[in-house]
This record gives sequence, structure tokens and C-alpha cells, in this order.
Amino acid sequence: MDQLCCLCDFEKLALTRLPKPVADYYGAGACGEHTLKLNNSAFQKLRIRPRVLRDISVRDTSCEILGSKIKIPIGVSPSAMQKMAHPEGECANARAVGEKGSIFILSTLSTTSLEEVAECAPDTIKWFQLYIYYYRDATKALIKRAENAGYKALVVTVDTNVLGLRYADTKNKFSLPPHLTKGIIMYEGSGSALTSYTDELFDSSINWEDIKWLRSITDLPIVLKGIQTAEDAIIAAEIGVQAIMVSNHGARQLDTAPASIEALPEIARAVENRCEVYLDGRT
Amino acid sequence: MDQLCCLCDFEKLALTRLPKPVADYYGAGACGEHTLKLNNSAFQKLRIRPRVLRDISVRDTSCEILGSKIKIPIGVSPSAMQKMAHPEGECANARAVGEKGSIFILSTLSTTSLEEVAECAPDTIKWFQLYIYYYRDATKALIKRAENAGYKALVVTVDTNVLGLRYADTKNKFSLPPHLTKGIIMYEGSGSALTSYTDELFDSSINWEDIKWLRSITDLPIVLKGIQTAEDAIIAAEIGVQAIMVSNHGARQLDTAPASIEALPEIARAVENRCEVYLDGRT
Amino acid sequence: MDQLCCLCDFEKLALTRLPKPVADYYGAGACGEHTLKLNNSAFQKLRIRPRVLRDISVRDTSCEILGSKIKIPIGVSPSAMQKMAHPEGECANARAVGEKGSIFILSTLSTTSLEEVAECAPDTIKWFQLYIYYYRDATKALIKRAENAGYKALVVTVDTNVLGLRYADTKNKFSLPPHLTKGIIMYEGSGSALTSYTDELFDSSINWEDIKWLRSITDLPIVLKGIQTAEDAIIAAEIGVQAIMVSNHGARQLDTAPASIEALPEIARAVENRCEVYLDGRT
Amino acid sequence: MDQLCCLCDFEKLALTRLPKPVADYYGAGACGEHTLKLNNSAFQKLRIRPRVLRDISVRDTSCEILGSKIKIPIGVSPSAMQKMAHPEGECANARAVGEKGSIFILSTLSTTSLEEVAECAPDTIKWFQLYIYYYRDATKALIKRAENAGYKALVVTVDTNVLGLRYADTKNKFSLPPHLTKGIIMYEGSGSALTSYTDELFDSSINWEDIKWLRSITDLPIVLKGIQTAEDAIIAAEIGVQAIMVSNHGARQLDTAPASIEALPEIARAVENRCEVYLDGRT
Repeated sequence: MDQLCCLCDFEKLALTRLPKPVADYYGAGACGEHTLKLNNSAFQKLRIRPRVLRDISVRDTSCEILGSKIKIPIGVSPSAMQKMAHPEGECANARAVGEKGSIFILSTLSTTSLEEVAECAPDTIKWFQLYIYYYRDATKALIKRAENAGYKALVVTVDTNVLGLRYADTKNKFSLPPHLTKGIIMYEGSGSALTSYTDELFDSSINWEDIKWLRSITDLPIVLKGIQTAEDAIIAAEIGVQAIMVSNHGARQLDTAPASIEALPEIARAVENRCEVYLDGRT
Repeated sequence: MDQLCCLCDFEKLALTRLPKPVADYYGAGACGEHTLKLNNSAFQKLRIRPRVLRDISVRDTSCEILGSKIKIPIGVSPSAMQKMAHPEGECANARAVGEKGSIFILSTLSTTSLEEVAECAPDTIKWFQLYIYYYRDATKALIKRAENAGYKALVVTVDTNVLGLRYADTKNKFSLPPHLTKGIIMYEGSGSALTSYTDELFDSSINWEDIKWLRSITDLPIVLKGIQTAEDAIIAAEIGVQAIMVSNHGARQLDTAPASIEALPEIARAVENRCEVYLDGRT
Repeated sequence: MDQLCCLCDFEKLALTRLPKPVADYYGAGACGEHTLKLNNSAFQKLRIRPRVLRDISVRDTSCEILGSKIKIPIGVSPSAMQKMAHPEGECANARAVGEKGSIFILSTLSTTSLEEVAECAPDTIKWFQLYIYYYRDATKALIKRAENAGYKALVVTVDTNVLGLRYADTKNKFSLPPHLTKGIIMYEGSGSALTSYTDELFDSSINWEDIKWLRSITDLPIVLKGIQTAEDAIIAAEIGVQAIMVSNHGARQLDTAPASIEALPEIARAVENRCEVYLDGRT
Repeated sequence: MDQLCCLCDFEKLALTRLPKPVADYYGAGACGEHTLKLNNSAFQKLRIRPRVLRDISVRDTSCEILGSKIKIPIGVSPSAMQKMAHPEGECANARAVGEKGSIFILSTLSTTSLEEVAECAPDTIKWFQLYIYYYRDATKALIKRAENAGYKALVVTVDTNVLGLRYADTKNKFSLPPHLTKGIIMYEGSGSALTSYTDELFDSSINWEDIKWLRSITDLPIVLKGIQTAEDAIIAAEIGVQAIMVSNHGARQLDTAPASIEALPEIARAVENRCEVYLDGRT
């Protein structure tokens, strides 16, 4: 086998090993996948401007993110149900990220409980991704568990009041493999489609007031994931969240939305350093 | 068979079931089909700007179009000879549109009489698409029939003084299948090509005066279908038509014309709310 | 066989019937054929803006070109050695153009003598395309023959001081088929490549003074074919030529030159009606 | 075999004759090869503006570069290990360039010693490409050898403080074929990858002070190869180097850097004739 050199080598290999519905679940974008292609192609309009003749014998990519010192300014975004890809799932990922000195964000839709991930990777900086559930008490309980397990920030996904249409999942009648532990998620129905799950538990009324409520019940820093316009970024900055993650949910929510990298400049300008700004990948 | 998820799934499937001349008739654009491709690709320059954290638990897409309350702002444009695709043809389509609470526009080149469509789908909001025929009395009679049968507006196609060149139809020597009822159309010649039909019956002298004449003989709202420039939109607004449908006739009339979505902004700005403006699809 | 509907249908069919070196000769552009592709693709940035509701029952495409009334504003540009494609060659083309009421431009590199073409198509408006040869007396004699035979204008090609590199011709060791009459051309060497021919007979010193000399020895209107910049168009207008044909020689001379349609607007603006401006095709 | 007409013909043929790791070494760009594609495609936005009717019977492409009169303004950039392609390697290339009256730049990573190249091609104008090695004394010795052998300029590569990632080399475990003379390079390790070589010998601390040091130890003109921004070009001009070669190292160093032709205009404007500016190819 050829040596794996780049992300696309890993991606190609993974697709040969994963069952089709799983590969499709990880790979699919919403609807016609216009934004999915755009997430990649939009980078091709950009150029690095290489400066030369600088002493780079000592190179340091470390920086501070929400008060944590990390070694590289690249973390791992939340992605759901990682045990579908490998039996060690979220734990393996969290440990690997820790070794590289960066941040691991655990998805609410994890196939490993948040406490187990914390135990497996005690030295990794861990954040917890949160959907605000219809049942606010359950939501609150989840936050308390994250606090107790040592998670350092809440990453609140704000672009999923309804779940995006992913045709591949529909065609595959995608469901969570039944032998997998359901980890954090509280829904104990049949092996139904993710859409049924989110339809029943997600709250499509979520709005800025709910962010203020979150603000009031936890001292963890709040990161809003899914901001795509300067208008919303300004509201976020004024409400006092600690950070914005510019994201189109890996092109899985609303097709024909801008590429994340297209949305980044206007958002960065709009917040004027009032909060931190990150870019969510999948390009 | 895979579940049908999007328009293109239906389109692909339909192409496997329709006889080639019929599939070609529905599918072809004019000449080199540059505008046909453009009708689709022009959308790729546009981005939806997703706003987040709004309470969307109650969603309402209804609106009022020419005084009728409809449930979604998407109707069905006139397309000719629908019984070539399915024996229930225009009736089935009209009923389906009614169930979704929108507007069905019946083509003059229908394979079902306008009265039969009205009877089959009494609760559907129906508009009637009109070509102004060389024989003005016949045109007038047709309008009266539409009024009597409860059609709520006249959609006057203004971009077909001569019929567009569609190479596939020429190569297939396309003709209306003889076993089909001719519905509304009055021409009783042999199974000749559509071009012969329109050459004999359509009037290439049609101009703004004819629109004023129409205005004088009916109280139905008039929608001009086929406006593609701000200049013509302004004349339409000044003449007092109720609505403009920005359309390039599904790219079937004049190749290298703009995509409808390219023409929309200048037209919307030009009419300044003096009349309603719709976008004709086929993208 | 399918009915032939468009130019590309004819082109495809012709390529199946012509010997490869001949098809390559007609088809090739210079070098990497960037401009060849551009000659076509540059049109895709343009849109016709369709106006509607005009009385077009009487349509007239006629116009006056250099004092001749023609039925359509599209003529036939000079192309070399037409008997390679068909035994009737230039004569058949000239007659066909006459039937359509337009202008036929005979190439200096014709495979039929200019007198024979004149005899075959007496009612066709004919212009004569001229290269200024190294031998000025021969050039002058050629002009007199064209005048005597009733040609109505001289189309002087100004972009061929050296012949463009066409790789296909080089690879095919392209030569004029020996059984063909050499028509106008005076070179009686072996069946050598066109490049040898032009190397020996064409004059790479040709400049604006030569145009003035031409002006002084003939009363025929002069059309400069091969102008591609506003700068040169202004000189042409000041010198007093009757017309400019914006042309990149069918992309056969200098690769990476602009598409003709790209160069047209700046040239049309620059000459300000001081002379007529035509667009050379092959797109 | 078809006659070879253009660079791409030679390239295609060469790829059929070179062993895969060698073809890959010469052909590969860094990482995803975005800049490699861009180096070519960026030219397609440019157009030559052809002027006509100039006397071009006497054509002269000669010019003076760093005081040397050359016949065409195109030289041969340094490329490494040319004996991998042909046993005569750098010597053959140097002689050929001399015959054409241009400049040959010998790579530090030559497979022929600089003295041998000088002996083989005594009449060729030769420049020497230099990496500043970790061992400054060795670097200095190399410069003295180049001076003594009659090289006329030092081309200092400034974009390689660390070597670019070329996936093909990694996958092929690329190494210098052991039977080849190592020419100039001083490293006598095993047949290890180029990356190991450069990691051990190249100095990633190289900066503008080192250019001043070079300036102080030699009277040869200094050309900085690898400048890609106006900012660095200005520094170079102020420091007093004789020339800048705008280059992205054939797209082999930093992927997503601009095409050289994209970077050229801002650099040419910035230096305002204070030094000569060249464009490095591989397009």
C-alpha cells in the first residue's frame, strides 16, 4: 500500500473500508451538495503570499484558545457516531488529539459517553458540543455532566433547528447500527433514522433567548457553531459569547449556503475582536 | 428502486420511461442549448445567507398571489401536451397542485380541454396560458371559455412570435401522438410538427397594442410571461398588467438569452411594485 | 442519417468524410490552440437581450456593405484550397453565397482561378482576399485581374507577415494535393508544405506604407483583415481604408491572441464610424 | 513517431522513457499541486495584443542580462540531478543552451561537478545556483569554485528554508540513483531521500543578513530566486542585489502560493528598475 501522505489519501482508503451507509453518512452533504463542493473549491480563489528570508529555524505554532495553550491552531470539530468508523471511536480520537496538543470537541451524538471519553483522555483539552433539546432539564443535566467531567467549553450548534436533507441517508434508510452503545444520546427508540431522532428531540424554536439562558446556567465559555453572516455574528458578540465557529455544518444543513471560508472575512471584520472566531472545516 | 429524493431523481427516472421523441420534446432547449445550461448554472453564483437562532417552530410559507391565498409560493408553469407523459395528463397535475395549495397554469397546447381540467380539479386555483392566435375571434372565444370555467388569470406568452428552433424535435420529426385528444387546440391537420402548427396559427405581429386589446375584452388579471428585460418590464407596468413572469420559455425559444434568474433583479427593480413579478423555472 | 440542424452537425459530418490531413488543415489552430477555444468560449460571456411584443411579421435582415445591398449581414470569409474538400470547391461556394444574397470572399490561396470563380458565379457579390507578395509586380498584376473579373473589394490580410505554427500540419507534413489546380497561386514548386510556400513568397516587411501603396494603385475599396487592437484600428481609419475585419485568422496565426469577439468592442469604439467594421468568425 | 512540435510533445515522450520515480521527481508539485496547475492556467487569463503592419523582416530577440549579451530572453533555470534523465546530464544541457546563445544556470544539486560543466561548455554563459548550507565555510568554498570556473552570477534560492512536501517522492521513497556521480553536492550518506539530505545540510535560519554576508564575500552579481511578493522585492532592491527571479520553485515548495505570472506584475512595479526581474517558468 502506498504511504498515506495527505487527508485525501486517508479519505480514499477509509471509503474502501467503511460500509456504504456509514461512508455515505460521513460523506454526504445536504441536497444537491453544491455547498459541499464549494467548501472545497472556494479555497482555490485564495493564495498564500510566501515571504522569504526569515529565520525559521525555531518555529512555534502554539497559541491560546479560550485560555488553553495549544500546540497547533487546528482542533477536531464534533462529528457524530465515531464508533461506526472504528470500535475505539471517540476515545481514540480524543487521545490522538491530546498527543498533538490540540482540542477535541465531543459531539452530543457521540457513541461513547462523555464521562468515558474524559476518562480515556484525561490530559486532552476537551470541549462539549451541545444541541439544545426540547427537554430543557435534560439539556441542563447534560451540561452539568460535561462540567463535572472537565469539559472546558460548550460548543452550541445553532444551525440545526431542523435537520438538513441528506439524500444518501434517505436512500440508505440510514440508522445507527444497533450494536453500538448510544453514548450520550438519550433517545431509546428503534434503530430509526437520524431524522426521526432529531425531529422528536431537537427544538426548532431555539433562539437568542435560549443562548442567554445557557449563559445563565453555566460558567463554561460558550462557542456558537454555525454562524454564517456578519449580522448574526454581531448579535453573538453583543450577547457576550466567548467565541464563534463559522460553519455550514460541513455543508450538511442548508445547501447553496456560502462556503465557510467565503463567510469568514465579513464575520471576522464584524466582531472586531469582541470574541474569538474559528473556522469549521470539511473542505 | 432508490427512493426519489429530488427533482433530478424524478427527471432521470422519467427519461427511462418516456419514448425518446417525447423525452426529447420535454427536455430540449433551443439551438445549442447554451441558455438551457445557463438556466441551471446561473444559480451557482448565488448564495443563501442563512440566519440562525430564530424560533422556526411555526413556519408559514403561504402568501397571496393575484388575490388568491396559496400555501407555498411555487406554482406549476404551463407545459404543453402532458398526456404524452401520462394518460391522466393535465388533470392529474391540476389535482396534485390543488392538494398542495398552489396554482396550476394550463397550457393552450393542452391535451385536455380546459373545461375537463376545471371539472377534474374544481378546488385548484387555475390560470390559463394563452397564445394570441392569428384568428382573434378564436382567441376571444378561448378567453370566454376560460372565464366561464373559472380560471382566475390569463398568462399571455409574449416570447413566441415565432417558435424556437429545437434540433431534437427536428431530428425526431416530432409530432403530437395521434391517439391523444387534442384538448384545447383547434388545429385539425395531420400529425404535423409543432412548428407547422404554430406557423399557421400563431401571429408574429403580436405587439403591445394586442395586450391593450386583451385588457379591453376581459376582466381577468393579465400575466405577461416571457419578459426578459427591464425595458419591457417598464412598458408592461405602465400598460397596467397585473403581473410579469420573468421567463426564457425554459430556454426553448432564443438561445444565448440570459438565464431567468440573471434577468430577475433588473426587472424587479424596474417595476417598483407596480405589478407582481414571478420567476419561471426549469433549471 | 440525422437531419443536419446546425453548423456543428455539418462540421462533425465533414470530419468523417475528409482525409485526415485535410480535416486537420481546416480544423487546426495555431500552437496550443488556446485562442481557437477562446474564439468559441468568449461568446458564452455574452447574452442576447430579447425584447418582446414587437410586430415581427415582416422581417428584413438586409443591409448595405461597401455600397452593395445584401440580404443577410453574414458573408463567407476567405478560406484556402476549397477543392481539397469538394471537387467543385470555390465555385460551388461562390454560387451558394450568391443564392443567399451575401458576399463571397475568394482566398488568394484558392484552388480555382479568380476568373473561373467569376464566370461560375457572375451574380454573386465577390471580394478578393490578397496577401501582399514579395514580388510587388505580381501582386499588382493579381489586383488588376481581380478588378477586371469584377471583384468589388480587396480584403488585405495583415496578420500573416510570417505564417502561424499549426502543429497538425507539421505532423502531417501537410501539402497541397498534387492533382488539384493551383488556381491563383503562382508558386510552381513541388507539393511542399504551405509554410515553404509562404516563406518564399510572402513579404514579412509589409507595413502601413504598403497599404498606402495599395491605396494608390487601385480604386477598389480596401478591407484590412486581421486588425485586433484599437491602436491599429485608429491608424487604419486615419489612412482611409474602407473597412476593418476584426480577425485573429481563425486562431491560426498567433496563439493566446484575444478572441475576435473580445477585440471587437474596443475597435468599434475606436473607429467611430470612420470605416465599416466586420467580425471574422470561426467560432 | 510524430514530429515533436511543442514542449508538451517532449514532455509526453520523456514520461514514456523515464523510470517512474524519476519522472515523478521531475513532474511533481508540492502537496495537492494546486499551484502546479495554477502555474499553467494563470496564463490563460492573459492575452497577447497583436499589432500588425510592422516591418518584421529583421527580427532581433537579443538583449543584455546582467551585462551579458544573449540571443533570446529565455534561459534555462536550475534543475537538479539531470543525469537521472540522460547520461550526459548537465553538460549536454549547458552546451545546447550555449548554441542557442542563452544562459544556463547550474543547480547546486547537480549530478556533474561545476568544473566539469564549465569545461564541457566553455562558451556558454553559465550562472551558479546556490543554497546557503548550514556549513558556511563549505558554502564559501563552493562560491570560490564557481568564481574560478567562470560562472558569471550566483542565483541564490531563497524559498527553501525547508524542503517542500512532494507526495510522489514520499510514496516512491525517492532517492538519488547510486550509480550517479554526486557532482557538486557534498553529502556522502546512503541513497537516502532528498528530504534527509536537505534536512541535514540546508539552513532554515537563512535570512536577509545572510544575503548581505554573501554580498560581502563575492563580486559576482547576486540573483535572488524565489521572491513572490512586492514586500520582499522591495527589500531585495534596497539591499542591492542585481536581480530577482520571481519563482515559486516550479510549484514544488509551498502549495497554494500564487502562480509566478500572478506575482510578477506587483513585483515589477515595486522594484521600479532598481534591479533586473526575471520570471521562472515551469508552466
